[in-house]
Amino acid sequence: MNASSRIAVVGATGAVGRVTLALLRERGFSDVHALASERSAGLTIDGLDVEEATPERLAGGDFDVCLFSVDAAASRELVPATAAAGALCVDKSAAFRLEDGVPLVVPEVNAERALEHRGIVANPNCSSIPLALVLAPLRDAAGLARVRVSTYQSASGAGAQALERLRAERPDDHDLRMDWSFDGFELDEEQKIRAETRKILELPELPLSATCVRVPVPVGHAEAVWIETEDALSAEQAERILGAAEGIRLVQFPSPAQATGGDDVLVGRVRQDTVAERGLALFLACDNLRKGAALNAIQIAELVTAARAAA
Amino acid sequence: MNASSRIAVVGATGAVGRVTLALLRERGFSDVHALASERSAGLTIDGLDVEEATPERLAGGDFDVCLFSVDAAASRELVPATAAAGALCVDKSAAFRLEDGVPLVVPEVNAERALEHRGIVANPNCSSIPLALVLAPLRDAAGLARVRVSTYQSASGAGAQALERLRAERPDDHDLRMDWSFDGFELDEEQKIRAETRKILELPELPLSATCVRVPVPVGHAEAVWIETEDALSAEQAERILGAAEGIRLVQFPSPAQATGGDDVLVGRVRQDTVAERGLALFLACDNLRKGAALNAIQIAELVTAARAAA
Repeated sequence: MNASSRIAVVGATGAVGRVTLALLRERGFSDVHALASERSAGLTIDGLDVEEATPERLAGGDFDVCLFSVDAAASRELVPATAAAGALCVDKSAAFRLEDGVPLVVPEVNAERALEHRGIVANPNCSSIPLALVLAPLRDAAGLARVRVSTYQSASGAGAQALERLRAERPDDHDLRMDWSFDGFELDEEQKIRAETRKILELPELPLSATCVRVPVPVGHAEAVWIETEDALSAEQAERILGAAEGIRLVQFPSPAQATGGDDVLVGRVRQDTVAERGLALFLACDNLRKGAALNAIQIAELVTAARAAA
Repeated sequence: MNASSRIAVVGATGAVGRVTLALLRERGFSDVHALASERSAGLTIDGLDVEEATPERLAGGDFDVCLFSVDAAASRELVPATAAAGALCVDKSAAFRLEDGVPLVVPEVNAERALEHRGIVANPNCSSIPLALVLAPLRDAAGLARVRVSTYQSASGAGAQALERLRAERPDDHDLRMDWSFDGFELDEEQKIRAETRKILELPELPLSATCVRVPVPVGHAEAVWIETEDALSAEQAERILGAAEGIRLVQFPSPAQATGGDDVLVGRVRQDTVAERGLALFLACDNLRKGAALNAIQIAELVTAARAAA
């Protein structure tokens, strides 16, 4: 994107949409339009009048880039026609992430895939992004044999209303939740983390198991990760590799509050997993609304449009 | 203990001490004395005048059973003399847990060890208790090869003041913390879980790694656990074994709030760990002030005094 790109933020009134608008302003984009459901049309957000996100408006040829942060059903309705009309669509829902021909992109990991898009690039789940970002340099250095992850996901990951519910709750009522849909074996969130991480890392058989938990924290997702590598890799080597990787910042104890408002995935507690011969353990934290969603999507749009401009 | 046992609760004004007093009353004990540091002496708690916990008072022969929930330094000062004076001491601090000759007991797991006491029985850490309780029946059924655990520990685990701080905090300031002491590799809490679980289960070499995290929940610790067994054990078999084990209640999604106020360790999400051939994954939650501390200690005292009465 450049300063004259015409950008639509679809789902502008949601938790991620609001952060998207703020980040676009920070980055100097001025031709930005806020769209949302009929219910939110007419509101003003971040100084912008909210328009209704109809298929006609989106496919009308008025936008170069459309950043979608709506639910999967709305994405399925709106995104294909918008892409067909020539706009680059970056979709943050689960609708197209696993579809063949739709790149699933974390720019630091697989930017080149974004350039293969056919109008749609999918933005991974807010837990998959930091995990893939951290696993990729370890995959490159030593191969990945096995990954186990337990998550500590913030209320804002469930949307603006969930964040408001947390804010209204008395601390004595705070609880952990597994508030995703459940097939009797896994939460859909756990399936997403596995399938998306496999696709981003291009390791379609990577053994990965996850336990996903919602914690009463406003913003910032954290993950405890156990990694078995194919080749030996000491904790010191792993830490050096991670510290040199784009988008990662090493800290002693990563925490959601520390990650909030920043662009980096914070990584710490990098250590040998004493129970496995080629095992590592680490802890990460990430602003789920920024790198976990809005920032990653903007970075995708920027890299695709930069490549198009250079071509 | 029986209704006429003379019981001292030492550290009666702390988070665990208060629950201990409440549980003793529920269980019909009436000759209960509240002791605490000089600072708290003179207060009234649960209808009892708080006396200062001096070595003279404790070793004066006035108590049959003393339940200590004070810090390790205070336990080291007070417990040995009290035990030498003939009272059964159940100590909830880390002072004696790993000492040879001091049984470390979860009654459902190793009640028989408590009977070997020489005046002191140690109560495990609030994260070790539910973990050992859940691992023991799986050890018996299939052997344990490897355990990984990440914890979600509540504020009350850090004491009454930490709980008050959480209650005074705005939800927007909630964060995850790793507020234990750190040797550059592990948190002392992580070391405790490994060393204590090994001792309780009598598996001195058990490979176990932990990542310990404090979450902004008032009461109730949860743990995501990955277990590799020596022999094959299906998730269905594991669930059946756990469901039949004393002290465990199966639920779909264990949560701290659901565990709070109850005696059981809640276990759910029992499933095959898809990344390991003989791997299981599960999630547990437990009231850290009750089964994780006060209740477990009372159960120890009850079983020792019952055995003494029967002898």
